[in-house]
Amino acid sequence: MKHDSLCLTLADIAEHLGATLEGDGKRRVRGVATLKDAGPDQIAFMSNRAYLKDLAGTRAAAVLLHPQYIADCPVDSLALDNPYLGYADLSLLLAPQLGIDEPGIHPGATVAKDAVLGKSVCIGPNAVIERGAELGDGVVVGPGCVIGAGCKIGASSRLHANVTLYHGVIVGKRAILHSGCVIGGDGFGFAHDGEKWHKIAQLGGVVLGDDVEVGSCTSIDRGALDDTLIGNDVKIDSQVQIAHNVRIGDHSALAGCVGIAGSTKVGRHCMLGGGVGLSGHLTIADGVQVTGMTLVTNSIPEPGVYSSGTGTMANAQWRRNAVRFKQLDDMARRLKRLEKEINNT
Amino acid sequence: MKHDSLCLTLADIAEHLGATLEGDGKRRVRGVATLKDAGPDQIAFMSNRAYLKDLAGTRAAAVLLHPQYIADCPVDSLALDNPYLGYADLSLLLAPQLGIDEPGIHPGATVAKDAVLGKSVCIGPNAVIERGAELGDGVVVGPGCVIGAGCKIGASSRLHANVTLYHGVIVGKRAILHSGCVIGGDGFGFAHDGEKWHKIAQLGGVVLGDDVEVGSCTSIDRGALDDTLIGNDVKIDSQVQIAHNVRIGDHSALAGCVGIAGSTKVGRHCMLGGGVGLSGHLTIADGVQVTGMTLVTNSIPEPGVYSSGTGTMANAQWRRNAVRFKQLDDMARRLKRLEKEINNT
Amino acid sequence: MKHDSLCLTLADIAEHLGATLEGDGKRRVRGVATLKDAGPDQIAFMSNRAYLKDLAGTRAAAVLLHPQYIADCPVDSLALDNPYLGYADLSLLLAPQLGIDEPGIHPGATVAKDAVLGKSVCIGPNAVIERGAELGDGVVVGPGCVIGAGCKIGASSRLHANVTLYHGVIVGKRAILHSGCVIGGDGFGFAHDGEKWHKIAQLGGVVLGDDVEVGSCTSIDRGALDDTLIGNDVKIDSQVQIAHNVRIGDHSALAGCVGIAGSTKVGRHCMLGGGVGLSGHLTIADGVQVTGMTLVTNSIPEPGVYSSGTGTMANAQWRRNAVRFKQLDDMARRLKRLEKEINNT
Repeated sequence: MKHDSLCLTLADIAEHLGATLEGDGKRRVRGVATLKDAGPDQIAFMSNRAYLKDLAGTRAAAVLLHPQYIADCPVDSLALDNPYLGYADLSLLLAPQLGIDEPGIHPGATVAKDAVLGKSVCIGPNAVIERGAELGDGVVVGPGCVIGAGCKIGASSRLHANVTLYHGVIVGKRAILHSGCVIGGDGFGFAHDGEKWHKIAQLGGVVLGDDVEVGSCTSIDRGALDDTLIGNDVKIDSQVQIAHNVRIGDHSALAGCVGIAGSTKVGRHCMLGGGVGLSGHLTIADGVQVTGMTLVTNSIPEPGVYSSGTGTMANAQWRRNAVRFKQLDDMARRLKRLEKEINNT
Repeated sequence: MKHDSLCLTLADIAEHLGATLEGDGKRRVRGVATLKDAGPDQIAFMSNRAYLKDLAGTRAAAVLLHPQYIADCPVDSLALDNPYLGYADLSLLLAPQLGIDEPGIHPGATVAKDAVLGKSVCIGPNAVIERGAELGDGVVVGPGCVIGAGCKIGASSRLHANVTLYHGVIVGKRAILHSGCVIGGDGFGFAHDGEKWHKIAQLGGVVLGDDVEVGSCTSIDRGALDDTLIGNDVKIDSQVQIAHNVRIGDHSALAGCVGIAGSTKVGRHCMLGGGVGLSGHLTIADGVQVTGMTLVTNSIPEPGVYSSGTGTMANAQWRRNAVRFKQLDDMARRLKRLEKEINNT
Repeated sequence: MKHDSLCLTLADIAEHLGATLEGDGKRRVRGVATLKDAGPDQIAFMSNRAYLKDLAGTRAAAVLLHPQYIADCPVDSLALDNPYLGYADLSLLLAPQLGIDEPGIHPGATVAKDAVLGKSVCIGPNAVIERGAELGDGVVVGPGCVIGAGCKIGASSRLHANVTLYHGVIVGKRAILHSGCVIGGDGFGFAHDGEKWHKIAQLGGVVLGDDVEVGSCTSIDRGALDDTLIGNDVKIDSQVQIAHNVRIGDHSALAGCVGIAGSTKVGRHCMLGGGVGLSGHLTIADGVQVTGMTLVTNSIPEPGVYSSGTGTMANAQWRRNAVRFKQLDDMARRLKRLEKEINNT
C-alpha cells in the first residue's frame, strides 16, 4: 500500500499501524516530525517520557504515543504499545517516492547475455552485470554498480549507486546496500617465507541473509576457504570492515567504523558500538553489547555489556594520569608491600 | 590569475601574496619545495624557527619567511607575517594545471533532461546527473560520479571521480569532494520490535556549506527527520563517518578516520584528531580540540584540549599494567583503607 | 603454469611446491580445505601442531605438512618445511579461473588517445583512462575504474572494479588494488589565517612499489611537496587511511582500519594490527609490531611488539575502574606519601 504523501488520513495511519485513534480520522497529514518541530499537517511521536513537556506544547496534527499518555496529549492521538516502532513503520509509509525507479535496463548499462533477470528489475546507467549473475524480482541496481560473475541477489533488494560485488557473492531478499560498499573483496591472507609475502587465494565467498542493510563505504571480505556469513536481519552501518570468514548471527547490529578481524563469530542479537574492534578467531555470545571504541581481544561467552578505554579528560589531566598508567604494576606491588608492612606493625 | 608554472617571477609572487620582496623581482621560479630540497628554480618557506639551520643552507631561489628572519636568509626573501599561509596560497598558484578540465558534457555522461546546468560546467565520462539536479557555474563533475535527483551544487565546486550524492543533497560553493565519498546515504536508524529490526526511513537531507572539503571514502549520512548540517569552511579528511543529524560548526576540521554518532553537535573552530570518536547526542563547544583516537562520551561545554587512552608501551610492560587496570578500583579502596589505618596509628 | 582445477595430480602439486610426496602421484584433486572439512578430492594442510588431532581424522586426499608429521598422517602426504607457505602457493594454483579476463578494451571504456597500453591489457566497461596514462603488459582494469592523467601502472597489475587513481600515481608491477580504494587524493593540508582555512595544493604524488596489495575502500593520499611512498611487497588491508608523505618500508603489512598521519615513516617488515593509529611525523623502526587499536604518538626506535589500551571488561566493572583512572596521578602521590610515613615510623 502506497499513498501519495498528501492524501494520507489519520484513519489510514491508525489502520496501517494498528493504533487506536482518538480524534478526527479524516484529517490529512503529509509528514512526520519531532514533537517540537511538527506543524499542523504532520504527525509526531513520543518514544519515552522524557519528552512529556514537549508533548504538552506540540502543534502536531496527532501524536503516536503509549496509551498511558493519551490524557496528556493536547492534540489527536494514535496510541500503540511501541510508539517508536510505530514511527519507524510510519516513516516508510510517508517516505517521498524518490526511490521509485522505472523498471527496465538503462541503455547505458552492460548486462551479460547469460545474466538471469527477474520481473520488474531496474538497472541504472553504467551498471555492469557480469556473466551468470542472477537478479530476483524487483531488484534495483543503481548507476555505476558492478555485480560480479555468478552473484545472486534476492528479490526486492536495492543496491544504491556505485556498489561493488565481486564474483559469486550471494545476497538475500530485501537487502539494502549503500553506495561505495564493497562485498567480496579478497580477505587479507598471506604466508611469509621469512623475507616476503605470498598471497593466499581467497577461495571462499560471501553470503548475506535476508533483510540485511550495509552502510556506505563498508567492506565485507570473501572467505579464505569457507564463506563469510552475515545472518538475516543484520544491520551494518557505514565505514565498517568485516574480514574473511567472519560470521555474524541474525538480528545483530554493527555501528559505524566497527572492525572485525578474520574468523571471529558474533552471536545473534549482538550490538557493537561505533569503532569497536574485535580480534580474530573469537567467539562472541548471543546478546552481547559492546560500547563504542572498545577493543575485544578475548572471546565473550556470556551476554552483557562490555567496555574498555579510559574516559575523556582535559589533556593536562590526562597526561598526568597516562604517565601513571605506565607505573601501574609498580604501584600495585608497592601497595601490597605497604599492606604487609602495616599488618606486621 | 593563472600562470604557466615556468613564467612566474618573484615580483608576481610578492604581489600575489602581499609579501615584501628583497631580491631580484625578475627571477623566474617553477615550483615550491622545502628549505632542504629546494633548487635554484624553486621557492622555499620557513614556517617556524626550528628550521633556521635549514634556512642557512638553502639553495632555493627565494624563501617565504617572517620579516624577523630576513637577515638570516642567504638568498632572496619574500617576507610576510604568516609564511605558512603564504606557502598555502603560493602552492595553489604553482599547482600544475592538470585540474583544468575542458568545459562541456562528455558524450558518455548521462544527464537528466530537466537538470539545470550553469555556465562552463564540466561533466566527465560515465557521470550521471539525475532528474532535477542543479549545478552552479563552473562545477566540475568527475568520471563515474552520481548526482542524485534534486541535488544542488554551488558554483565552482569540484567532485573528483566516483563521488556519490544521494537525492536532495545540497552542496555549497567551492566545495571539493574527493573520490569515493558518499553523501546522503541513509542514517543508521531502526526500531526493534523485540525480535527484529524495522527500518526508519531517513527523511532528512544533507546540507554542506560553502568551502567544504570532504576526503576520499568518507561517509556523511542524511538526517532522519531534519538535515545533517556541515557548516562553512569545514574540512573533513578521508575515511570519516558522520552519522545522521550531526551538525558541524563553521571552520572546524576533522582528521582521518573520525566517527561521529547521530545528532551530535560540534561547535565552530573545533579540531578533531585522527580516529576520534564522538558518541551520539553530545554538544561540543566552539574551539574544542580532541587528540587522536580519543573517545568522547560526554558533552564538552568548554574550549580546550581533550584526550583519552593510555599511551604506547612495549607489549610485555603493557600486559602487566593492563591487568592492573582491572584492579584499579580495588587498589583505590585499599589505598584509602591504608591511609585510614596510618592516620589511626 | 595453469591447470584446470579438475586435472591436477598430487605429483603436479608436489613438483610445483617442491614438496616430497608419500602416496599416489596420479591421484587427482580439485581444491583445498581444512583438515576437518576436506573431502577425498581435496588437499588439506597442517600449519601447526595444534591441529594434530584433526590430522588423525582427516578425509583429505593428501595433507601438506612438515616432514616431522609424516608418520602421523593417515592419508597421502606432501611434506615441506613451511606447509602454510605451501598452502598459499597451492591456493593460487587451485583458484578458480574467474579472474581470467579476455584481453581487449571494452567498447564502453573511455581511453585517451595518447594513453600507452601494453600487450594483453584488459580494460572493462566504463573504465576511464585519462591522457598520458601508461599501462604495462597484462594490466587488468576493472569496470568503473578511473585512471588519472599521467598514471603509470606496472605489468601484470590488476585493478578490481571501481578503483580510482588520481593524476600521476605510479603503481609497480603485480599490484592488486581492490574495489573502492582511492590513491592520490589530496592530502589534508590547510593553513589557518586566524579565522578560516586556506587550502595547500598537494603537489606531490604517490608511488607504490612492486607486489603491493591495497584493500577495498582504502585511501592513500598524495604528498604535499614530495611523494607518498609505499615500498615493495607492502600489503595494505581494507578501510586503511595513509596520509600525505607517509613512507612505508618494504614487506610491511597493515591490517584493516589502520590510520597513519602525515609524514610518518614506517620501517621494513613492520606489522600494524587492525585499527592502529600512528600520529604524524614519527619514525617507526624496521621490524616493529603494533597490536590492534594501539595509538602511537611517539617514534619507536627499536623493533619489538608495542601496545596500548586497557583490555575489555564487563561494563559495570569498567565504569568503576575508568573513574579511578582519572584519579591515578592522585593515587600515585598518596601512595608515595604513605610509603614515606611508613618509613618514618
